[in-house]
Formats: sequence, structure tokens, C-alpha cells
Amino acid sequence: MAVADEQDVNEVVAAAARAARAATGSLAAAPAKTIDEALRGMARRLADAHGRSGGPILAANAADVAAAEAGGMSGGLLDRLRLDEARLAAMAEQLNILADVEPEPARRTVRELGGGLVLQEWRRPVGVIGANYEARPNVTVDVASQLVKSQNGGVLRTGSAALASAIALMDEVVAPALAEAGLDPAAVQLIRARGRGSAEALVAQPGLIPLVILRGSGESTRSLAEKAALQGVRTLAHADGGGVLYVDAAADLDKAFALITAGLDRLGVCNRLNLLLIHRDRYDDLVPRVTDAVAPRVAVSLPPHDHPLGYEWALDSAREATITIAPAGGPLDAARIANDETSGLAAGIVTEDAAAAREFLSAYAGTGAFWNATTRLLDGFKLLNVPETGINIDRVPGPRGPVTFRDLSLRQYTVVPADRLADLD
Amino acid sequence: MAVADEQDVNEVVAAAARAARAATGSLAAAPAKTIDEALRGMARRLADAHGRSGGPILAANAADVAAAEAGGMSGGLLDRLRLDEARLAAMAEQLNILADVEPEPARRTVRELGGGLVLQEWRRPVGVIGANYEARPNVTVDVASQLVKSQNGGVLRTGSAALASAIALMDEVVAPALAEAGLDPAAVQLIRARGRGSAEALVAQPGLIPLVILRGSGESTRSLAEKAALQGVRTLAHADGGGVLYVDAAADLDKAFALITAGLDRLGVCNRLNLLLIHRDRYDDLVPRVTDAVAPRVAVSLPPHDHPLGYEWALDSAREATITIAPAGGPLDAARIANDETSGLAAGIVTEDAAAAREFLSAYAGTGAFWNATTRLLDGFKLLNVPETGINIDRVPGPRGPVTFRDLSLRQYTVVPADRLADLD
Repeated sequence: MAVADEQDVNEVVAAAARAARAATGSLAAAPAKTIDEALRGMARRLADAHGRSGGPILAANAADVAAAEAGGMSGGLLDRLRLDEARLAAMAEQLNILADVEPEPARRTVRELGGGLVLQEWRRPVGVIGANYEARPNVTVDVASQLVKSQNGGVLRTGSAALASAIALMDEVVAPALAEAGLDPAAVQLIRARGRGSAEALVAQPGLIPLVILRGSGESTRSLAEKAALQGVRTLAHADGGGVLYVDAAADLDKAFALITAGLDRLGVCNRLNLLLIHRDRYDDLVPRVTDAVAPRVAVSLPPHDHPLGYEWALDSAREATITIAPAGGPLDAARIANDETSGLAAGIVTEDAAAAREFLSAYAGTGAFWNATTRLLDGFKLLNVPETGINIDRVPGPRGPVTFRDLSLRQYTVVPADRLADLD
Repeated sequence: MAVADEQDVNEVVAAAARAARAATGSLAAAPAKTIDEALRGMARRLADAHGRSGGPILAANAADVAAAEAGGMSGGLLDRLRLDEARLAAMAEQLNILADVEPEPARRTVRELGGGLVLQEWRRPVGVIGANYEARPNVTVDVASQLVKSQNGGVLRTGSAALASAIALMDEVVAPALAEAGLDPAAVQLIRARGRGSAEALVAQPGLIPLVILRGSGESTRSLAEKAALQGVRTLAHADGGGVLYVDAAADLDKAFALITAGLDRLGVCNRLNLLLIHRDRYDDLVPRVTDAVAPRVAVSLPPHDHPLGYEWALDSAREATITIAPAGGPLDAARIANDETSGLAAGIVTEDAAAAREFLSAYAGTGAFWNATTRLLDGFKLLNVPETGINIDRVPGPRGPVTFRDLSLRQYTVVPADRLADLD
């Protein structure tokens, strides 16, 4: 296990990107069948948890967990770090689901041009995509498989606490399965260096890695996204999240309480209920009932707030079990608050009144909008039944909200003689 | 005509963006019919060249032209600055074409989710989009109409030499046509300040103007795009261009010479023939014949070159009438040269050999690829029969190559009760 010094980490990342780039041709040229074979090969190796590949993975992971425990890592993080047979099986299942997904057509005929020519729109791989993610070993396989499915090479970087596990997963699962399918295993690289320096180096290679997926949220993601922008590197990221639910004057209260409960099933995730807006006519009646309903698990923060309205409790480990409650004047006012005071991730309305729903949905501009449904559905797998690459919050054309492998492609216009089109197949 | 001092230009731009934003609701909520009525209203006002609106426009333009002449502006630029009845009529025709284009569906049902819910994908306007363009008055109407068609507000900024013309076009054509259709004319704003400061201010408002279209190319576009990235503002831009044509071993020479000629019909445009690659087996034979064929209008630059291989002659006003010629080892080598040594705008292959075409097209990653066709076709209108918003060169997912109004939208996932879907119409 080669672990580089931080000082040469820029060169380590650049070398990995060059190696991945040199190998991307093998992925780009592969038929879909070969790609899916490689994914199924990864799944087989994971499912063999105590066999040839599983043994080294679980051993490496045990070492990561022991080191993290010795370093004082807390319960939730430690739990995410740990692999066991069930988790390897779950990872394998995701890979098989991904292998079963039909890829988008790579070529679409747009129209006949003059002069015997025809215009096509082609979808091309990006090339080499970077990915930075927290110390969760399963993400190594998750991201690697999605890059392979989209026929992109990759440079992966994980938190130091999971590095031994990630190396084992690359060496025992990802690389051999690629090789077995006849693909170049160098196409997906893992940065085998500890420390944050490699994350910063990953977003500083615009020529080699034009796009970087940043998993996770909060300050470190925000800082990496800013560093990337300064370097001309595009990121798919959401530093901030937090779901909004607006209880309208015409809400069915059973639905409202069910959605509040559904929005709080997990408290550390970006799409959980974070800000509850209540129509002012029902505010005084509902606040004590909501407070009772969520207690004792979750506390409420009522006006006057000592924090911004969109303050994201999931990022505040000491006060994670909190929701903010505030009044709203109606659907438009609720949408305005969600647009202006929150991250723009997701917001929903509870109402039986279609006109109110229309007003809210027309005005709310975030990446996901919900009517009588929980923002917890803002998830690539739940919405699209395809593993999620990441969530991107921005306000420009391109992949936005939950991103899947289908989004990881470039548009190219291609003009060919109409009578030779068949020769390209 | 109010022209601001440069010192307060940041506040001028921010105020324009706020005014546009406050008015975008009127565009976003408008049915397609109303939008198209506004575009046709603009066309009618332009066609009335010597009437109520045309008079002030031609007068303002005459003043711009006189000032530019007095300032020593050169022939080509002066010609682009000048408006006459024929040019107003051509602008009107473009508007009517745009009005006739069917917009993309705003909503698409993706799939049924569980729990009686259905997932839709909605296309939403971006909000306020910036546009910076050279001193060509027609672009004011061109860009304004495309923003209106895509239901976006806008902040436009043009070169000082065309400012009086642009103001007249806004005040006599764009704004009154919007108002006549019942839309808020404040949705499209023109920066009425002279000097480059307003261009820099335009790319420095990430909260108000998340996306800026940069027309034109060369150093000033590159510098604005870099400033935008530093501020977290996305741009649609191509600082560099230059078409590539590869003459394969199996090229039909009549086609090759016709494509060379077609690629040089205009020399100041980004998609013209800039680099001619010739298969090495035909190189010695073809170089003198090509040199003769393009002379005396265009000179050739032969190896050893005293410039980078992708050097863009269109940006070199003193040596615009030049093409670079170089040998290539075959289709893959030609694609590699085009990928690594040029801007990535567009490249083509001339060959009768389908295998060679496949190799080249599979390997070339630029925004447009051509087989027995000229890169001069890399143009939104020629390819898609829709006015072009701009050309974007980058290597990330999203609008790439020729961009049209269809690209100026945001993706939003929307979840609604399946049995209430009809209530949203």
C-alpha cells in the first residue's frame, strides 16, 4: 500500500489523471454489454465476502475501523466506515441494478441538412471525472461503477479514515473486474495519499479533470467548490441542503403530520425536513401540535430565530435534532421564502387546493418540488430508480438536482453524408 | 439618453439585474402564444424602418457611425456597426423565424413513483441571464428576443460604439413590443453605461445573474470568462475557435478542394478553416496544389511553424488570410492533433473510407464533428434552424457547441399526486 507524502500530492493526482486518461479509450470504445459485464463482475467479487476478494476487503476495513476507533471517531461516522457481509451484499445489489439499466442512446438523428447531409447529436463521455467523498468505503465502488457505466475514466479521492478499505476495494473488486471484462483497469484511479491536500489537488487540474463530483456537504464541500471554480474546474456539488415543507391553509392535516414525520426519518441527510412553514391562519393552532408531534425526538426553533431561516440543522451535529418553524402568508410567500432564504435543494406544499399547489410549484425554483409528498424523495435512486452520482445545486443549465450516470456526458453535433450514415454503425 | 459614470457601474448593473428579476415573473407565467406575439411585435416595429420606430433607430445609428468614423474605426467594424433598411428587415425576419419555432415541452412525465405519486421533469427559465457582445446593434435584438423566447429576463451590455443604436432598439422595439403583448418591458435591461467596466460588472453578480452569454472571441472574452469563474458566474463562451479539416488518404480530391474553399468563404469567423491536416502519404503532392488553390486570397503557413499549431488566424487581424497546413499520420492522429492542439470547436475529415471516418469521429471530442462537410456549418442556425444564442466550448455536461434558446432552462424534478396531475394544467 503506497501512501504518498502530502508535498507531492499535486503530482500524484496529475499522474493518476494522466493514467486514467490514457485508459479511457478502452471504456469509450466498449459496447454496453462489456461495460455491464464489468459491473456484474464487481458485484460477484463483492458478494464473495469471505472468499478470495472479500477476505482482504474486510481485513483492510477492520484495520481502518480499529485506527478510527483509536483516534476517537464517533458512533455515526464509525458506523458508516464499517463494512460487513450484509453491506458488501447491498453494494453488489446496487451494481447489478446499475448493470441492468439501459444506457441512453449515444446517437440521435436531429434532421436532414441540405447538400445530402444529416445532423446527429452524439453523447460522448466527458473523459476523466474526479470524485471526492467522505470516509465511506462503499462510495468507492458506487462512484467507480457509475463512471464506468457512463464510459468515463475517474480519479477518486476519499477521506483518510477509509483509505485502506478503498484501496482493497479498488484492488480486489474494481480493477480486476474491469480487466476481466477486457477493459483497461487504469481507467479508474484512486489517490492513495492521506490528507486533505489530495482533495485540493483534485480540483486543480482543469486540463486533465474538467469535472469533479463532490459528495458530502457543509464547509469543506463549499471550500472545495470555490477552489475548483477559481481553477476553471466544474463541480457537481451541494454544500447546503435542507428540505422545506409549507402547510397551506387548505392542507389535509393528516397528510401534513404524515409528511412532517416522513421528513424526519433521518436527521443527518440533506433532504430531510429542515424548515416548516405554516400558513399564518393556522399557525397558532398548529405550532403546539407540531411541537408535540415531533417531541421528544426533535426540538423546534420558533421565531424570533437566532439563526438564518434556512440554517441547516443536519450540518450542526450538536443540534441536528431540530426543525425551524415560521409563518408564511400563502403559497407564493412560502415559495419566495424557500427561494430566497434556503439552499434551493427541495421544497414541498401540503394542500388540497390545486390553485395553491400551482402557485407554489410555479414559483419555487429549487432542484426538486413536491406536492403532498416529502422532500426525502429528492434522491436519484428514489426518483429515477438509478444509483445517484451526487446532487448538484446551481442555477444554470446542465445536470441539476439528483445527478445520475446519464448526466455524465458531453453533447457533440455531428454532420455526416446521409447516404453513408449506415456505415457508421 | 442616460449614460452612467464608470465608477458606479457595479451598482448600475446590479440595479438593472434587480429590475429584470422583479419583472421575470411576467415572462415565466406567459403562455407561448403571448411570448411569440411579443417577438412578432418586435419584427413589425423593425420592418417599419422609416416610420415611427425605424426613424429614431436609423438616426441613433447614424450618430454611432459618425462618432465611430471620427474615432477612426476601420472598415469591417464600421460595416458591422451600420444599420440600414435591409438590415432591419433581416433582423425582423429572424424574429419571425424565432416566433414560429415550437418551444420544448415545459413538463415531461418521467414515471410513476409509489404511493400514488408521479415524477415529472420540468424545464424552468434560468431567471436573469447576462449577455455581453461587441458593437453590433443587431445583436441587441437578437439576444433580447432569444431571452424572451426562453422566458428569461436579461441584462444586456454592448460595446460603447453601438450604445446609441442599442438604446434606440430597446426603447423603440424591444420594450414597447413586450408591453404591447402584456409583458413587463423591464424584464430585459440594457446597461446604458459606456466603457469596459460594465462588462466586468456583468460577470460579477452571481446572486442576481448566475449565467452570462459572452459573444465574440479572443482575449477580451477569455478575460471576462476568467473573471466570471472567479465570481462563481457561469458563462457560455468560446474565447478560441478555428476549424480543422483532415484530408485522409482515401479522400476524394474534388470534395477536399471544395471543402477547403467552403471553409474560407469568410475569414473573420470562428468556424472557418484554420488548420488543414493532410495525410502524410499525400502531403507532398497536395501542399503545392492547395497553396495554388487558395492563392492569392489566402496564404499558407507550412512547417516548421513559428506559432502553435492551433493558432487562430481569425483573431490576428494583420494575418487573417492565412491557414496552417501540417501532416497527419492517419485519422486517429488527426483527431489527436485536433483534440490536443486546437480549441475543440470543430473538426472534419474528408474521406471515402467509412472505417477512417469512424475512427476520426469516434476519437474527435470537440463540439462539432464533420464527415465530408465543412466546419462552417457549426452554427446554431445552419444546424438547428433556430437563431443561435452563442457558442460554448467546454468539456462538461450542459449546453455545448451552438447554444439556442432551448438550452436556456433549468431542470427541476417535480413530484405530485398522480390523481391531481390534471389539476396542474
